[in-house]
Amino acid sequence: MATGKINVSVENIFPLIKKFLYSDHEIFLRELISNATDATLKLKHLVSIGEAKVELGDPIIEVKIDKKGKKIHIIDQGIGMTEEEVKKYINEVAFSGAEEFLDKYKDAGKDAGIIGHFGLGFYSAFMVANKVEIITKSYKDEPAVHWTCDGSPEFTIKKAKKEDRGTEIILHIADDSTEFLEDARIRELLLKYNKFMPVPIKFGTRTETLPKPEGAKEDDPAPTKEVDNIINNPNPAWTKKPTELKDEDYKNFYRELYAMQFEEPLFHIHLNVDYPFNLTGILYFPKLTTDINIQKDRIQLYQNQVFVTDNVEGIVPEFLTMLRGVIDSPDIPLNVSRSYLQADGAVKKISSYITKKVADKLNSLFKNNREDFEKKWNDIKVVIEYGMLSEEKFFEKAEKFALYPTVDGEYLTFEELEKKIKDDQTDKDGKMVILYASDKEEQHSYIEAAKAKGYEVLLMDSPIVSHFMQKLETTKEKISFARVDADHIDNLIKKEDSAISKLSDEEKDRLKEELEKVVGEKSNYTIQLEAMDSTAQPFIITEPEFMRRMKEMQQTGGGMFGMGNMPDMYNLVVNTNHELVGQILNTKTAKKRERLINQSLDLARLSKGLLKGEELTKFISRSYEMIK
Amino acid sequence: MATGKINVSVENIFPLIKKFLYSDHEIFLRELISNATDATLKLKHLVSIGEAKVELGDPIIEVKIDKKGKKIHIIDQGIGMTEEEVKKYINEVAFSGAEEFLDKYKDAGKDAGIIGHFGLGFYSAFMVANKVEIITKSYKDEPAVHWTCDGSPEFTIKKAKKEDRGTEIILHIADDSTEFLEDARIRELLLKYNKFMPVPIKFGTRTETLPKPEGAKEDDPAPTKEVDNIINNPNPAWTKKPTELKDEDYKNFYRELYAMQFEEPLFHIHLNVDYPFNLTGILYFPKLTTDINIQKDRIQLYQNQVFVTDNVEGIVPEFLTMLRGVIDSPDIPLNVSRSYLQADGAVKKISSYITKKVADKLNSLFKNNREDFEKKWNDIKVVIEYGMLSEEKFFEKAEKFALYPTVDGEYLTFEELEKKIKDDQTDKDGKMVILYASDKEEQHSYIEAAKAKGYEVLLMDSPIVSHFMQKLETTKEKISFARVDADHIDNLIKKEDSAISKLSDEEKDRLKEELEKVVGEKSNYTIQLEAMDSTAQPFIITEPEFMRRMKEMQQTGGGMFGMGNMPDMYNLVVNTNHELVGQILNTKTAKKRERLINQSLDLARLSKGLLKGEELTKFISRSYEMIK
Repeated sequence: MATGKINVSVENIFPLIKKFLYSDHEIFLRELISNATDATLKLKHLVSIGEAKVELGDPIIEVKIDKKGKKIHIIDQGIGMTEEEVKKYINEVAFSGAEEFLDKYKDAGKDAGIIGHFGLGFYSAFMVANKVEIITKSYKDEPAVHWTCDGSPEFTIKKAKKEDRGTEIILHIADDSTEFLEDARIRELLLKYNKFMPVPIKFGTRTETLPKPEGAKEDDPAPTKEVDNIINNPNPAWTKKPTELKDEDYKNFYRELYAMQFEEPLFHIHLNVDYPFNLTGILYFPKLTTDINIQKDRIQLYQNQVFVTDNVEGIVPEFLTMLRGVIDSPDIPLNVSRSYLQADGAVKKISSYITKKVADKLNSLFKNNREDFEKKWNDIKVVIEYGMLSEEKFFEKAEKFALYPTVDGEYLTFEELEKKIKDDQTDKDGKMVILYASDKEEQHSYIEAAKAKGYEVLLMDSPIVSHFMQKLETTKEKISFARVDADHIDNLIKKEDSAISKLSDEEKDRLKEELEKVVGEKSNYTIQLEAMDSTAQPFIITEPEFMRRMKEMQQTGGGMFGMGNMPDMYNLVVNTNHELVGQILNTKTAKKRERLINQSLDLARLSKGLLKGEELTKFISRSYEMIK
Repeated sequence: MATGKINVSVENIFPLIKKFLYSDHEIFLRELISNATDATLKLKHLVSIGEAKVELGDPIIEVKIDKKGKKIHIIDQGIGMTEEEVKKYINEVAFSGAEEFLDKYKDAGKDAGIIGHFGLGFYSAFMVANKVEIITKSYKDEPAVHWTCDGSPEFTIKKAKKEDRGTEIILHIADDSTEFLEDARIRELLLKYNKFMPVPIKFGTRTETLPKPEGAKEDDPAPTKEVDNIINNPNPAWTKKPTELKDEDYKNFYRELYAMQFEEPLFHIHLNVDYPFNLTGILYFPKLTTDINIQKDRIQLYQNQVFVTDNVEGIVPEFLTMLRGVIDSPDIPLNVSRSYLQADGAVKKISSYITKKVADKLNSLFKNNREDFEKKWNDIKVVIEYGMLSEEKFFEKAEKFALYPTVDGEYLTFEELEKKIKDDQTDKDGKMVILYASDKEEQHSYIEAAKAKGYEVLLMDSPIVSHFMQKLETTKEKISFARVDADHIDNLIKKEDSAISKLSDEEKDRLKEELEKVVGEKSNYTIQLEAMDSTAQPFIITEPEFMRRMKEMQQTGGGMFGMGNMPDMYNLVVNTNHELVGQILNTKTAKKRERLINQSLDLARLSKGLLKGEELTKFISRSYEMIK
């Protein structure tokens, strides 16, 4: 038996880095600016604890493009490296300098937590450059160093003349990567990844107009000067304390995040926790449309102010991915699969912390200014209803503030609703029936019929409402939801007293027969004779709740398999106590009777939105004839 | 100045592999089975060229889980390794053995092209295992070798007792990866990545019922035997020649790919090219719904029968991502960014080859069986129209077979359409006006009005139709599209002869005044008096084409900015030659006149689908009164 050491052949590590390590070459800039930022923050830290005795000043990072020379320069004024450090940190790939640093200073305070989370940071330069130079001078009193490597494992190292402290990286851009020599491309990358990094980043200059000197003439041009163009905001709102920020600051930050977003957010939630994990951030509730899918992926994930991704699936509970804003946490593992993320304990805690914070914020908005909360309800209900459907914990909390709007614009909590309708809308089996409409316009006549009975009608129009009602029906006891057009109103809420029919049984049979002759020909409506108020409509088309809801549920995912393809089912309710129905029965001429039934049927179908196409055109022509 | 060699420190390469190399740990199995497959195919190849003198047999790969021992075994009957080869191929990370093999045998034929495309294949084992063993015996007459490594760079190597040719990899699964000890999980992975790999993969056994021996009694149990459970299909349809396959084989393969898909594909396209790139595959046209987005990402990308991804963005032209099927090509670079893919020359060629093949197939379907093609049109038109909109080359080819259905179910090519309508539907400025409806039911009365004039009306109802028409209008000369409800029919196609109005100018002024009094109160319809046929409707509501189309275009992306939020604009066209309109003018009582105007307006709104809610309920009640 023999033992040995696996030999990683360096001849092959560079193509590997280039090809496999990152799928996206553009992240080289993020990596190098992260390193420059780390170097700057490290120096700040050493100065603050008295270990570096140097003048700190206001260090910045500069990015310069030399298009002619095909080079990109990245210059920082940070800690710099001695020759020994270059050999140690650069020549030894995968040796984590940051880790060692952290070990040494880990007790110095949480701000020192500056690990380069992205692995082989520096070497990502070789994804876009065929030669890289480092010119660096340490804050220690040692000569500057110039390191050069052309992507092969050979490097050269020599003394340099650099006088200022800090590191300059020079990338000689390869021919297949010249896109990165374009100003617009680099600006795009800086704004994508570094918009909120904690050290100012200079990219070019811009002209600033100065105030005119005293005594200048009206038409003298105002003096100007070239100033550094700082591309980032090193102190974004989420890094500040909530007490330092006004409502206006939050709105401004929203505009900073979403420049193309003209609408203001409804409200914000400031996240801030250090234990048992570290997380800061600001979430915004935007106005939501009913299309759930298109609104996802607007929350940006940062790690110590470095942009990571805008896919927060697995970190933020699904129902909150419709929100916007920023989450910044060093505790979220990157570069791991989603399934791993979902199983990770820390991530689970983060997810439930966010859920709790959102619920608390909603609850306090509801309590402190209910009027305003009601105004916002329609814009936020999708999130809340979806959350109640998918997260049991959120359901419990949301019970207090979830609102049920009536068609008349009243907003009730479930408790208030129950109090209001329990007496009137409990049927003979003791079930409380909650009536609702999904569209005030389309179901107008049905809503009117329910109101005429003194019933309350809710307006439930979110896309997931059928699932939501199903959930409520199974969670609460003895309640059921019924859409106003699911049956005629006396059947929707059945009371003990049965109405008296004006027609005899014999007349009813005859009526049914006549109706079936005419109606049966052109539809498969089930005819249902009912003794209703004489003031109710004579003909009503209804659509049974169960089938309709199952079909809706399947359209939005879920429900019973195969229901989505079932045909729509309608009943034709005929009010035997209506004058017109009596008239139909007493009309002797078959033709005349048929005309009465057809016109009534058309009107009932019109009311339910079922009279269309040729039949509607014919109905209209007939009606023009009638008014002439 | 000094030079040196960058030292890749092995102490750190393992955590690196584990953490960063692959975001998805599950791919270790794909990698190891790819290696086993390569080893088997290499041996086959050596036997076929006479360089290995061994009995090949029917080699398989076996995957075994030892749940109790927390181990996974992957066993092949391939080429095996000698001690020297283990040292060379395993101990030197990133040394591409496959590459050297290929160099040696590259002239031996294309089937030898068996590069392990996935980089550090074997070492991905350490993502899930804390100890890995290799027991291997080469096809050469040398003793077997047993290599062991616990994830540190130290390994041990010794002689082994293995008698059969081939390699066995034993993974000692780490505590954070025990999910991979579950049968169901491994089965899932095998089916995901290895379903069509070219060597049979055994995973467990299954019981097969044998025929009863002769003379067995009725109720004797049938004999059974345990047989290998082969989990993959080593010869999937796309690896065969089109001439070897029947229509039924293509359908069966579709079911193999999409087990949960009950609907049959409409037709298939077999891709097969070796030069200037290598690509095989089968694409299917499924029945498409109008929702473009949800149908993407169903095409599976393979490399030499190994599953890579189901995201073919950048490889297949966008409009074809709605198709389904398989593409297999060793020439598509993996693990590179999408923007790189789109710029890659080979990928561009692949993309335009696929476009061309799809266009050719559609053309031959159209030519060979037009009737059938017409039947399928509604299920495929979204792809074709989207393709014509986005790819100029496809537009040119599709001109021959793109169909324009009429509301009466006739399907015309553009050329046929032009021939049919040019004489009748060219207006006085020489522009050919193509009339269309987006909904036969909703626009029924308008379609009837156009038909009454002898005009043809198309049914254009795809979601991108407004963009598509815009494209046609700018590509072709002197044509324009107009929806039937964009104006009254005489204005949509203006001819030289102007109709004579029954009303005098004074009467028209008076009529307009009366109409404005009533209509102006409840809407902002623009009133437009027109001398039309006396048989046309008296009141018509129209919606100008330009505004409506711009709004639609913005809803589906594009169009003029800000149009999406403009209010809907309607005109009220009043036919001064209709009897009812004369009647309105001659009615003396203001109240009666108002009632006539209101009822007519309601009927016109009903026809355009604008009478809703309370107004509709009132209209219906009024109408019941009228028939009583």
